Amino acid sequence: MAYEARHMKWWGWGYEDAEFRASRHPDFWPYAKSVLDIETDDFPRREWSTESIELPEPRTDERFLAKLRPSLAPSQITDDAKERVIHAYGKGFRDLFRLRHGIAAGAPDLIVYPESERDVCLALRAAAERDVVLIPFGGGSNIAGCLERMDATRMCVSLDMRRMRRVLAVDRRSFTAQIEAGVLGPDLEEQLSAHGMTLGHFPDSFLHSTLGGWIATRSAGMQSDKYGKIEDMVIAVRMVTPEGVLETRTVPKSAAGIDVNHLCTGSEGTFGVITEAVMRIHSRPEVRVVPAFLFPEFEGGIEAMRECMRQECSAAMVRLNDPDKTALSKAFRPPASGFSKLAGSLLKGYLRAKGFALPRACLMLTAFEGNQAGVARQLRHVQSIYRRCGGLNLGTSAGKSFEATKYDFPHIRDFLLDRDVTTDVSETSTVWSNIIPLYTNTMALLRSSIRETGVCPWSGCHISHTYQTGASVYFTFGFRQQLGQEMEQYLRVKRTVQQSFIDHGATLSHHHAVGTEHLPWLSADVSPLGVKAVAAIKQGFDPADVMNPGRLLPSQSALEDWMRLGRDPAFRAYVSSAKDRAS
Amino acid sequence: MAYEARHMKWWGWGYEDAEFRASRHPDFWPYAKSVLDIETDDFPRREWSTESIELPEPRTDERFLAKLRPSLAPSQITDDAKERVIHAYGKGFRDLFRLRHGIAAGAPDLIVYPESERDVCLALRAAAERDVVLIPFGGGSNIAGCLERMDATRMCVSLDMRRMRRVLAVDRRSFTAQIEAGVLGPDLEEQLSAHGMTLGHFPDSFLHSTLGGWIATRSAGMQSDKYGKIEDMVIAVRMVTPEGVLETRTVPKSAAGIDVNHLCTGSEGTFGVITEAVMRIHSRPEVRVVPAFLFPEFEGGIEAMRECMRQECSAAMVRLNDPDKTALSKAFRPPASGFSKLAGSLLKGYLRAKGFALPRACLMLTAFEGNQAGVARQLRHVQSIYRRCGGLNLGTSAGKSFEATKYDFPHIRDFLLDRDVTTDVSETSTVWSNIIPLYTNTMALLRSSIRETGVCPWSGCHISHTYQTGASVYFTFGFRQQLGQEMEQYLRVKRTVQQSFIDHGATLSHHHAVGTEHLPWLSADVSPLGVKAVAAIKQGFDPADVMNPGRLLPSQSALEDWMRLGRDPAFRAYVSSAKDRAS
Repeated sequence: MAYEARHMKWWGWGYEDAEFRASRHPDFWPYAKSVLDIETDDFPRREWSTESIELPEPRTDERFLAKLRPSLAPSQITDDAKERVIHAYGKGFRDLFRLRHGIAAGAPDLIVYPESERDVCLALRAAAERDVVLIPFGGGSNIAGCLERMDATRMCVSLDMRRMRRVLAVDRRSFTAQIEAGVLGPDLEEQLSAHGMTLGHFPDSFLHSTLGGWIATRSAGMQSDKYGKIEDMVIAVRMVTPEGVLETRTVPKSAAGIDVNHLCTGSEGTFGVITEAVMRIHSRPEVRVVPAFLFPEFEGGIEAMRECMRQECSAAMVRLNDPDKTALSKAFRPPASGFSKLAGSLLKGYLRAKGFALPRACLMLTAFEGNQAGVARQLRHVQSIYRRCGGLNLGTSAGKSFEATKYDFPHIRDFLLDRDVTTDVSETSTVWSNIIPLYTNTMALLRSSIRETGVCPWSGCHISHTYQTGASVYFTFGFRQQLGQEMEQYLRVKRTVQQSFIDHGATLSHHHAVGTEHLPWLSADVSPLGVKAVAAIKQGFDPADVMNPGRLLPSQSALEDWMRLGRDPAFRAYVSSAKDRAS
Repeated sequence: MAYEARHMKWWGWGYEDAEFRASRHPDFWPYAKSVLDIETDDFPRREWSTESIELPEPRTDERFLAKLRPSLAPSQITDDAKERVIHAYGKGFRDLFRLRHGIAAGAPDLIVYPESERDVCLALRAAAERDVVLIPFGGGSNIAGCLERMDATRMCVSLDMRRMRRVLAVDRRSFTAQIEAGVLGPDLEEQLSAHGMTLGHFPDSFLHSTLGGWIATRSAGMQSDKYGKIEDMVIAVRMVTPEGVLETRTVPKSAAGIDVNHLCTGSEGTFGVITEAVMRIHSRPEVRVVPAFLFPEFEGGIEAMRECMRQECSAAMVRLNDPDKTALSKAFRPPASGFSKLAGSLLKGYLRAKGFALPRACLMLTAFEGNQAGVARQLRHVQSIYRRCGGLNLGTSAGKSFEATKYDFPHIRDFLLDRDVTTDVSETSTVWSNIIPLYTNTMALLRSSIRETGVCPWSGCHISHTYQTGASVYFTFGFRQQLGQEMEQYLRVKRTVQQSFIDHGATLSHHHAVGTEHLPWLSADVSPLGVKAVAAIKQGFDPADVMNPGRLLPSQSALEDWMRLGRDPAFRAYVSSAKDRAS
């Protein structure tokens, strides 16, 4: 029996048996209600069934299928309705909102599960011959709209890569591993663990995303401070394109012209299918400690992060919450025991005595890992810098609680969607000197854009993923939905944030790819010539445009395209029925 | 008066008043004579004059000139014969050998000195309109053949970038500097030094190479272990192409599709002209120490380097010489004082007592830099690892002597060329597990290929530029020339080494670019699809092929092209006259 990947629920994040459990986070909903100005608890529990979803009639090219069937097992090809729904979108707000309203216009006509590079080549060859669109699918966790079908006029096939999941070779002397691209995070770590190794890549989506997906979207793991972003870990790559296989050598560094590995990282499935990569790996850390710190102000925490970079010392993970995100973290904590409550109130008293103005205080989560001596040394060094910047060591309980729940955050969105609240994130990176201006300006614009939709804004930010020259700046926001206006509300807010990134010298995304969500700003980010280069490479690798069309190539009217959801007939129907209900 | 860059001598390395002084290295020539089997000291001292050089009649397009003249000062345009000779080639063996034999078929017809990006744009526009070839020229230090004119049928202009030499802005908080691409190493460091900063990029060519050249060739400085390769330092870039200006944002990291900075690094002038870059910079180190170590065997030294990477500690520079290169280093040392001689012989006795078999011992040069405490800590850590691998601390005298003469090595080649000896280098990188197999195999092939030309081989190797997954492996070789066969000898040996790199899983070059020297192996290195991508980008940026044509795009008969020098009429004439003299 072939390996079969377990799918995430189509209406939200995670497996069907996983969800946000309010009882484990008793302070969360009261906090959300208060900041979002929600008065009711009366939200009907909905049962999700694919039967409520309007799937377009599958467009089937029999001659395409005839090319696949002789070589693939029946289990490798399906047009099952639920499979089509599952492969229709990623997990962005727009994706989930549409599916939850029965709209699956983006669904592929067919799903193919390749089990080898040969199968991938076969699918690409057949697609090119029959003018069929292929969209590589990893874990389906993308939130930037990388997986949505953009062209309804051609047959569309989702290429679910998760059966290509083997670690093929580990070179422990050289700290490299050759890995099939469809492997999910936990499976990969388990296989590497058998060799005493780790990739060190733990994005928020870790449970549900694949190596190939990470590479195609330029993902960053929480410990990127120590292990780098995914593009820093790729030593060699194999990418099947309609024109043949791109294949690079397993060498640490080269001067062989331009670095063609970088034509694969960030390619979002539009040049070809990444089937394998040789990755830089690491010995599994002997120890891991997760102290948290409290800074009297956001600025001091940022300065502490910068000073660590200047002094060339760093934790494996740093995540500095602004005051609002600090409040959210507090609300998200598991219920406190009597003792913790006591300790908490003692701490509060102590902090006040120390001159901390609690509403402005900022929580810094950190993780250190490596061998005993190295961790002790780094921790000492980092702590001494933090202390000079006003940071106070809170011990490890906040860190442990973060560790225990770090992959659960995306469940919050589903919980809130169930309560007619839209939440989303927009993240970027900028240089140290620009973090505060970017933060202040973007936050102001973000909050006023939410207010303009007639509701109360919640927004927070954290700084993480530090580099010598700067860091990632990650905004989270939420607001009550205006019935029938949900998408307009979302688009207005999202657009405001993205435009602010570009207007204030930042990038459209630090680690969430371009997809459809960020496409209107690509040309402003990498310049029109940068986009022209993408178009030229696309022309070289995929002249028939069968690979994930519409990615990385904003049309003249990109912003209009971006907003086109409002013009989608199925979506319009929802909007008018919702408006009827509202009035 | 506009800034004018001082040129290197056309017949060798360095300024005209700089050369290898045998009296400062009294052991060197006796060593060279003994290992290369040379019996005579009787080599005529030659006076070099451009009058002996046969320059092709300049091909001049008056309408091209008419487009430039209204906007450029007279000092920005020249077709002076000596300037043409100086801009004809880089400093590879083939380049110097041809010039020294009066052959300058690669000379451009005109040299233009842009002083702003506007001037560069003007030149590109005029070139595209008039089908004129442009070759960007930095310091002219390239040894891979990146600067040679490949097409004699079109007017060819060398674009000497050295007047664009300003550091435009320094952001000390963010450790970034915006810098014009034509700045030479020492000038750049002087300007950054005024801000207390350094780029940390010190390639062997440092005195004579430019920022733009480093980026276009994927250069590595000696301290890349600490500061990274040049491509790791590029934060943003401006590249003028015939289709417009590619311009990226000053952000630490992004997920904006493929990383278009990597379309500039390694582009070898064939997509456009790099006019500016924002680079990651560093505070100038407080201290610098340069201890050297001796390892009983090459393998132990390599293991020590690897173990440092595994334990995440590293010097700023490490350079492990194999036994032959260790002997060369010894011969290159300045004359010893009486005391040093005594110390030297005491050391020798000590080493013998310690069980070092001196002919197999390997010298490891290192440099540590940073703040006092950091350097002390790193040094302690690295030393403890070295000790466990058999390394013996020799103190700092070998390191200081290396520091004092590190930019002089290229002068040796001129000294030896004057004595009818060919020397060259080939360098690569590979993963730790492959270093010894690559070294052993390549060394055997290299030596036998030299012997097959009828002369005695000298070859040595050093390992440097360490990464977690591997390191650079750098071969140096030399041999007596066979009169009239010099080029064939060279090509045979060079081809053997490059082929061995590819056959043994390494890359065609770690930091010397592709140029003409490595072009035949590009497709084997990055796969035919990788070359296809380069062609596609070229088509997008430079459809009329005016930018440095022939780079990065091996033709079907690349190897034959590579050998074509033997078919060049001017060169043939030299060969036949040399053969007459020999017989």
